[in-house]
Amino acid sequence: MAAPKKNGMQTVVFQNPPVIISTASVVGSREGDGPLAGTFDKVVTDTYYGEDSWEKAEQRMMFDSMKKALQKASLKENDIDFMLAGDLLNQIISSSFTARTMGIPFLGLYGACSTMYEGLAVGAMLVDGGYADRVLAGTSSHYCTAERQYRFPTELGVQRSMTAQWTVTGAGSVILAREGSGPVITHATIGKVIDMGQGDSQDMGAAMAPAAADTIARHFMDTGRKPEDYDLIITGDLAAFGKKLTEELVRQKGYDISNRYTDCGILIYSGSQDVHAGGSGCGCSAVVTCGYLMGLLDSGRYKRILGVGTGALLSSCSVQQGETVPGIGHAVVIEKL
Amino acid sequence: MAAPKKNGMQTVVFQNPPVIISTASVVGSREGDGPLAGTFDKVVTDTYYGEDSWEKAEQRMMFDSMKKALQKASLKENDIDFMLAGDLLNQIISSSFTARTMGIPFLGLYGACSTMYEGLAVGAMLVDGGYADRVLAGTSSHYCTAERQYRFPTELGVQRSMTAQWTVTGAGSVILAREGSGPVITHATIGKVIDMGQGDSQDMGAAMAPAAADTIARHFMDTGRKPEDYDLIITGDLAAFGKKLTEELVRQKGYDISNRYTDCGILIYSGSQDVHAGGSGCGCSAVVTCGYLMGLLDSGRYKRILGVGTGALLSSCSVQQGETVPGIGHAVVIEKL
Repeated sequence: MAAPKKNGMQTVVFQNPPVIISTASVVGSREGDGPLAGTFDKVVTDTYYGEDSWEKAEQRMMFDSMKKALQKASLKENDIDFMLAGDLLNQIISSSFTARTMGIPFLGLYGACSTMYEGLAVGAMLVDGGYADRVLAGTSSHYCTAERQYRFPTELGVQRSMTAQWTVTGAGSVILAREGSGPVITHATIGKVIDMGQGDSQDMGAAMAPAAADTIARHFMDTGRKPEDYDLIITGDLAAFGKKLTEELVRQKGYDISNRYTDCGILIYSGSQDVHAGGSGCGCSAVVTCGYLMGLLDSGRYKRILGVGTGALLSSCSVQQGETVPGIGHAVVIEKL
Repeated sequence: MAAPKKNGMQTVVFQNPPVIISTASVVGSREGDGPLAGTFDKVVTDTYYGEDSWEKAEQRMMFDSMKKALQKASLKENDIDFMLAGDLLNQIISSSFTARTMGIPFLGLYGACSTMYEGLAVGAMLVDGGYADRVLAGTSSHYCTAERQYRFPTELGVQRSMTAQWTVTGAGSVILAREGSGPVITHATIGKVIDMGQGDSQDMGAAMAPAAADTIARHFMDTGRKPEDYDLIITGDLAAFGKKLTEELVRQKGYDISNRYTDCGILIYSGSQDVHAGGSGCGCSAVVTCGYLMGLLDSGRYKRILGVGTGALLSSCSVQQGETVPGIGHAVVIEKL
C-alpha cells in the first residue's frame, strides 16, 4: 500500500519498496569499447545485428535485453503482469514491436531519454500499489536510427558540434517485483516539463539541465534529504556541458551536489572515443543503470543512489517550426537495504 | 488500496473507484457538424485555430480542453498531482508542449489512438493506489497534422480508399479524483499487442480489431461478467469495417456483444459527411468519451459502460520497412453508482 503524498509534492514514497530482482543490458560496439565494457551482458558488434534495417536491430536489442532479464530471474513472459517501455523512434516502434513478440500486457511510455526512469517510477507504483506482482520496464536507442530520424542521413558524414552528444546504441531492461532479493526503489520524484528557451538542437544537455536541476532540488525539498544522504547522484544523459550546468543550477537552489554527482553520458564513453560532449539516448541511462549502477550496489560500494532520467522533448517537426527544446527529469531512489 | 490481481489476469479491480469529476472536449468543424455536435464543449472552425501551424493548433486544442476540465471542477493546475497525456505526433509533441505550459508533473504515454484509455487506466491506478489525489488525463489529434505525418501532404488531395478513416480533430481531457461526484472507474483491462498480419495502412480498423476483441473477451474472462452486464460496449476508433470484424472475433471467443456494441468512430460522423469508414485518431475516443458517454451516464440512461480504447501501433517507417500493423486495446469500466 502506498503513502499518499501531500498536495503539491512531486515525490512518492513507497511503503513496500519494489525490488529490482533482475536487470539486463545489450550494447553496441562503441559502448563495448568504453570504460563500462565489463558491466554489460552482451556487446553486439554489427550495427545491423543480422537484421535488414537498423530499426529492426534496435528492436532485437530490446528483445534480447528483456529475454535476458527474464532468464536471469528464471521467469517467463507470463510471470510478468505488465511491460512498460518506450523509445526515441516515431510512435515508439521499437517498444511496440517488441511488445508484440513478448505478448505481455503493454503500457507504452514516452519520456524521450528519461523513459527508463519513467518506467521505473510508474512500474514501482504499479507494484507497490498491488496492481502487479512483477513488471518489466525497458527502453532502447540506436545511434543509426536516432541520427537519421532526428538529424542527417549517417552516410552524409555531417560535422558535429562539440556540444553534440552521441546516441548510445543499447537496450536495458529491469524487472521490478513485490518480493525477491536485490536493491529496492524507495522514492520516485515525477518531473515537470521545463523550457528555459534553449533552441540549439545540437546542445541537448543544456536543454535538459534546468529540468534535471528542478527535479533534483524538488526531491530534496519533498523528502527533507540533503545531497549527503546519497552516495551518488547521477543524471541520465546530460553529458559534459549539461552536467556542469545542472550542478550550477542545483547550487542556485541551495544544494551542493558537486562532490557526489556524475552523469551516465559521461561515464559510458572515454575521452578518446571522439563522442564530443558524451552519450545520450534512451539507452544511455538504461544500460548504465542496469549494469554499472547495479554493480555498485551489489558490491556494497554504494548503498543509496539518486538516479535522474533526463529527456529532451523535441521532434524534428518542433525544431523546424522554431520551437525551443523542453526538458524533463524523473528521479528514482535505488537503495541496497 | 488496490486489490491485487491474480497472476495471468489482465484486469485490475479498483477498491476505491476513482471518480471522473470533470471532462472537457474541444473539436474541429467537421466534428462540430456531426451527430454528436451538442455534446462538445467547444467547436473550433479554423483548422489553424489562430496559430501559424496545424501542430500548434492541435496543442492549443489540448491546452483548451485541459483548462476547461479544470475550470468545470473549479480547480487550478497545482491541484493536480500528475498529468498523463500522449498523442499521435512524433515524440508526442502536442502533449509535451502542453505539459510545458500546464506546469504539472508529467508522465508521457504512447498508445496511439488508445491513449485516452491508457491514461484513464494508469491514472485510475495512481489515484486508487494513493499516489495522487487528482490526475489529469488527456489526448488530442488533428486531421491535418496526422495526415501529413502518416500519409500524404493534404494539399495533394490523394484519393482515399473506402476502408480509410478520417482522423478526428479534437482533444479530450478527464480529471480523475479520489473524492468527488461523477461516474467512477471500477475496472481496467490492459491489452496485449496483437498482430494478425494486416499490412494495409489504409485499413486500420482491421489491424486493431483482433486486439480489441482479445481485450474484450479477456475482460469477460477475468471478471466473470457477460456482455449483458453492460448497457454499452464501445470501442475507440475501429469504424465500420473494424467494428464488424471485432463483433465476429468476440463471437468466436464465445461472447455475443452485437446488441449492445458500437464504436466511437461510427458515432462521431454521419454517413453524409464523406469520411469513408468513420473516425479515428486519439481524439476520437477522447471526445466521444468526454462528451457523449458522460452525457449517457449523467442522464441516467446508461449505468455501466465498457469503453475500449484502440490503437494501431505503426509508424511511417515501420510501414515503409514492410512491417504489418500491430494493434492494442485497453478497456475501462465506467459506471454511475
